[in-house]
Amino acid sequence: MLTIAVDAMGGDHGPRVTIPAALEMLKKHPNLELIMVGDQSVLRKYLRAKRALDTERLTIQHASQQVEMDEPPSQALRTKKDSSMRVAINLVKEGRAQACVSAGNTGALMATARFVLKTVPNVNRPALISVLPTDRENEDVRVLDLGANVDSSPEQLVEFAVMGSVLTSAIEEIDEPRVGLLNVGEEEIKGNDLVKKAAELLTNLHDINYVGFVEGDHIYRGSVDVVVCDGFVGNVALKASEGLAKMLLQQIKDGFNRNWLTKLSGLAALHVLKNVAKRTDPARYNGASFLGLQGIVIKSHGNANVMAYQNAIKEAMLEVEKDVPQRISRKVGKLLQREDA
Amino acid sequence: MLTIAVDAMGGDHGPRVTIPAALEMLKKHPNLELIMVGDQSVLRKYLRAKRALDTERLTIQHASQQVEMDEPPSQALRTKKDSSMRVAINLVKEGRAQACVSAGNTGALMATARFVLKTVPNVNRPALISVLPTDRENEDVRVLDLGANVDSSPEQLVEFAVMGSVLTSAIEEIDEPRVGLLNVGEEEIKGNDLVKKAAELLTNLHDINYVGFVEGDHIYRGSVDVVVCDGFVGNVALKASEGLAKMLLQQIKDGFNRNWLTKLSGLAALHVLKNVAKRTDPARYNGASFLGLQGIVIKSHGNANVMAYQNAIKEAMLEVEKDVPQRISRKVGKLLQREDA
Repeated sequence: MLTIAVDAMGGDHGPRVTIPAALEMLKKHPNLELIMVGDQSVLRKYLRAKRALDTERLTIQHASQQVEMDEPPSQALRTKKDSSMRVAINLVKEGRAQACVSAGNTGALMATARFVLKTVPNVNRPALISVLPTDRENEDVRVLDLGANVDSSPEQLVEFAVMGSVLTSAIEEIDEPRVGLLNVGEEEIKGNDLVKKAAELLTNLHDINYVGFVEGDHIYRGSVDVVVCDGFVGNVALKASEGLAKMLLQQIKDGFNRNWLTKLSGLAALHVLKNVAKRTDPARYNGASFLGLQGIVIKSHGNANVMAYQNAIKEAMLEVEKDVPQRISRKVGKLLQREDA
Repeated sequence: MLTIAVDAMGGDHGPRVTIPAALEMLKKHPNLELIMVGDQSVLRKYLRAKRALDTERLTIQHASQQVEMDEPPSQALRTKKDSSMRVAINLVKEGRAQACVSAGNTGALMATARFVLKTVPNVNRPALISVLPTDRENEDVRVLDLGANVDSSPEQLVEFAVMGSVLTSAIEEIDEPRVGLLNVGEEEIKGNDLVKKAAELLTNLHDINYVGFVEGDHIYRGSVDVVVCDGFVGNVALKASEGLAKMLLQQIKDGFNRNWLTKLSGLAALHVLKNVAKRTDPARYNGASFLGLQGIVIKSHGNANVMAYQNAIKEAMLEVEKDVPQRISRKVGKLLQREDA
């Protein structure tokens, strides 16, 4: 059996999304147990509406508070000790759950997870990693850090590279994931001080398959399995591309909605466009992971729908099955041993 | 009359693109004169093929060398003193042309332009700015820096903000363009040291309409007229979004090409999709500008086609007509005077 704690109140939609997603996942995975954390009277109401009050493998863990989406992390940490987010993380700490999932405030989740679970020995700070699509069918790419850190040091980028490599190797079952460093050009002379120094360190590190610099447009080309960058850069790049994709798809939709003739042609094209939308659907890629913690914490998009939230729970299950924190801890330990020698 | 020097050899396609683009522009703009810089025998051959050897308002300026697309900027600067790029910039310096356009090596263009033309007094370094589409019809956004600088200081970001505001105000004829600072969140506490310090400086600067932080996905939302960022971040964000857009459009194309049924539905959808592609066509947005120089230097995409290259020349014409370098110089001077007082 596999037990996951869900911050049932977190995100833009709270239990309206987390409860149906949880029930779906329990149906699909007979080896899954879920602990839904939040206001028990509210959660019971949602379960009752779904006629699922006595659902097997689902328990409610009461939490009296809730972290607001715009609440400063330090305030959440200080004043929300009984929030659904904090209690879900506590369950991981106490060993009652093997992972937790939250769609709540990213900053608060990061701060609370780090405070409660601590980082793996010798990992400076956790990093946020997520899967993104590439233009090669069935080949995805993982990018980190997506915003857990800003002003990272070269040494931190190396930590990100190692952690990203370990996760990708474990989940995708490939031996030596290709790791690239995000830069403004592929030539060695290009880039800022940060990536130049990180590249030097990575080139001398023979434990991961570092393949050199990659440019922004290469993220989606499937030429590497892991893209490493500072969290400021990763966050902006990810959001910028999401923004452009959204604009394009909206314009296509508007174009087909213009008049009855375009609507007709839209009907004809619907099948093809739906397939494309499905392949790059953000819901499919929902479930970013904080790597480097002594425990598994998965961040769902705040506005995830039921399908997307299920994928976040699925990511948690995968990382439990593959024992990702242990693997990271072992790999980081091994690297340090060598340095000491 | 308006005279523009064209680095006729630069870019992936050289005269195959620059010559037809030049001839088209001369046809459209009776007040335009072009000086085509490059190997005169090669350029004559292309003109002859177009039966345009005696074209009025087009002269050839011979240059015996050419900067390679992957040549290090310092090497180009040192060893290519008679390159088509260098000579085109010299023509601006000598006052024989009012602007120049090149699709050549960006780093070399930046280094050479800066060396030959110098920056406007009190501007530290030039910045690369370009127009991008937004989801509001007929509303574009300008983003800088796109990679002329990495490791910018807060003071440089302020310079970028002022220069971007001046250019946008001049070209779009709006009084107070809204200027946003690219960040990982909109709240004041978010961001790295660089943007926090720059935000402080910008908030105290009352000469431009600084509206606060914008996130990556807001670039394409038309909520601001100018987005300011360090060149590393801007370059990666731009390329990442280009990469995702390319992937999406390719997938749509592949989807319609799958079999005769999808091809048929593609035919029906063609009109709508072409309209969308046209609106976000990179060719329409070709022509980035190095702001902060004592002269106008426009950078075309290396792989620009004839239509795209015309837009780069058009951008040069606009900046000449609006006297952009003078305006930047006046505005920067005014700000400094106030500081001294």
